[in-house]
Amino acid sequence: MTSAGVIGIDLGATNCRAGFFVGNEPPSLREEIPSVGQFPVEEGVSRLVDLVDSIRRQEGVGSVEALGIGSPGPIDPTRSVIREAPNMPAWHDVPLRDLLQDRLGLPVFLENDANLAVLGECRRGAGVGAESVLGLTLGTGVGGGFVQGGRLWTGANGMALEVGHIYVGGEGIRCACGALDCLELYCSAEGIKRWYTRRTGNTDPSSHRIFEAARKGEKAALEVVQGASLLLGRAIASLQKTLDPERILVSGGLSREWDLLVGPAAEEAKRGLFRGVAEHFDLRPAALGTDAGLYGAAELALSSVS
Amino acid sequence: MTSAGVIGIDLGATNCRAGFFVGNEPPSLREEIPSVGQFPVEEGVSRLVDLVDSIRRQEGVGSVEALGIGSPGPIDPTRSVIREAPNMPAWHDVPLRDLLQDRLGLPVFLENDANLAVLGECRRGAGVGAESVLGLTLGTGVGGGFVQGGRLWTGANGMALEVGHIYVGGEGIRCACGALDCLELYCSAEGIKRWYTRRTGNTDPSSHRIFEAARKGEKAALEVVQGASLLLGRAIASLQKTLDPERILVSGGLSREWDLLVGPAAEEAKRGLFRGVAEHFDLRPAALGTDAGLYGAAELALSSVS
Repeated sequence: MTSAGVIGIDLGATNCRAGFFVGNEPPSLREEIPSVGQFPVEEGVSRLVDLVDSIRRQEGVGSVEALGIGSPGPIDPTRSVIREAPNMPAWHDVPLRDLLQDRLGLPVFLENDANLAVLGECRRGAGVGAESVLGLTLGTGVGGGFVQGGRLWTGANGMALEVGHIYVGGEGIRCACGALDCLELYCSAEGIKRWYTRRTGNTDPSSHRIFEAARKGEKAALEVVQGASLLLGRAIASLQKTLDPERILVSGGLSREWDLLVGPAAEEAKRGLFRGVAEHFDLRPAALGTDAGLYGAAELALSSVS
Repeated sequence: MTSAGVIGIDLGATNCRAGFFVGNEPPSLREEIPSVGQFPVEEGVSRLVDLVDSIRRQEGVGSVEALGIGSPGPIDPTRSVIREAPNMPAWHDVPLRDLLQDRLGLPVFLENDANLAVLGECRRGAGVGAESVLGLTLGTGVGGGFVQGGRLWTGANGMALEVGHIYVGGEGIRCACGALDCLELYCSAEGIKRWYTRRTGNTDPSSHRIFEAARKGEKAALEVVQGASLLLGRAIASLQKTLDPERILVSGGLSREWDLLVGPAAEEAKRGLFRGVAEHFDLRPAALGTDAGLYGAAELALSSVS
């Protein structure tokens, strides 16, 4: 038996993951190839075309109605162009939607991967049942996405929810974006490492090791972790007051440090909310892990063709 | 000749302003009564009913298809209830939409007045032509609203765009909302007065007098005004990065101090934006003044019935 469905692709930094989705089910088929971002654009596009063709030929795969793709970096919303992407050095101003549409004869939809991860969580993860969801990803950097009524708000320039770059105060450090004391400078894996190094001169430890040291009571590690949590709490309060989402989902590597980082940040945020909002405040871990972007890519395709 | 149209009402602190609107035209008729918020709820509602009936009886007014109302204070979005409103002390948890609908036999739509002011600007003011608009009101306090694709985003709890309460740093002052160093503490008419008083001990001057003194080079006044402008710039950058609106409109009494306050804040904000956003950065004064809320109330009714 074959069924009509859509293909979702998540262009990751190391791997490029794809799935065939029928309706609201988990992918009935998955494929993975090395990241296409390491190749020149033309070769990368050919590899994506081969990936889609290979899925189309599989047993059980019926007609493919659309393709949804998540890409790192900002996407120009009017032209569906990848402007630039970390770890994809050659991919500047790439009209990936049009390139793939021409080769595949399929409707193709392109979106930022952090945005799609939130959409994926809304479809099948921790966002199910909420009308509006703010997603925060605490990884190497800090990213975000906002879904309302099943639709992403990506901004006039495709640059909405750059929540890693809102002002949170701190030590007076200038960010590469041009602003002072952005959230990402203090509350990302990189930011925590650099903060700890500024304190101790120690350049070795990973952010995970710093959290371990804090749990054992090491003073500098504890101060950095508590500082990061305070600033994250401030950012969450400001975002709740700006967007007033029904639910906030936190994902990414640092979200595993819930006890020392996200939990205390949520308490700090709650203290800064109006009563009518604080009593409905709903912050929880995301549920889909690294699959969120893939589900989101499928959802983008599904919602665009239905 | 009579035409079908809608009635918009703006429940102000001193006056309650109403207009009859046909299509996209300015109001063909206006009425004004003293603010109903000074009366008990039952009497206030009766006065609103009388106001609508009086408009309905006027020459040239055809069938009224709907009523849109803007109210101060947060509105419960699921029940259309005024939770509480400044200057309307007796109006707690008032289901104004249902009360008026029952008495008038008309569809009634209720929304926060600051939100409606942005919707009004999008309809006929400085927001025309932009797909997404962030409105900032710098008055006694600081308020905001966000319109995307002609629709307001009011939040899961009706508390979105409480932009007066995002974190901007400052002097370490605790706000009534529970958070530290909210924008409104420094960049509202009240905030600037209190800041100046903390500096000088002088409790007399209005915010306008402080701006006048700054223009004459008075040191304390200049420092306060420059400080307020810096913090406003930070807030604007954070909001641009969160919402990525196509346009930002600034209204309210303090927006008249463009040269010392809003202009420098816009420059400060721009320095903290990613290049692709900075080059499209579009911040300008709102155009409708105190009429914005009335136009917005009409637009709410028009868009809800059409």
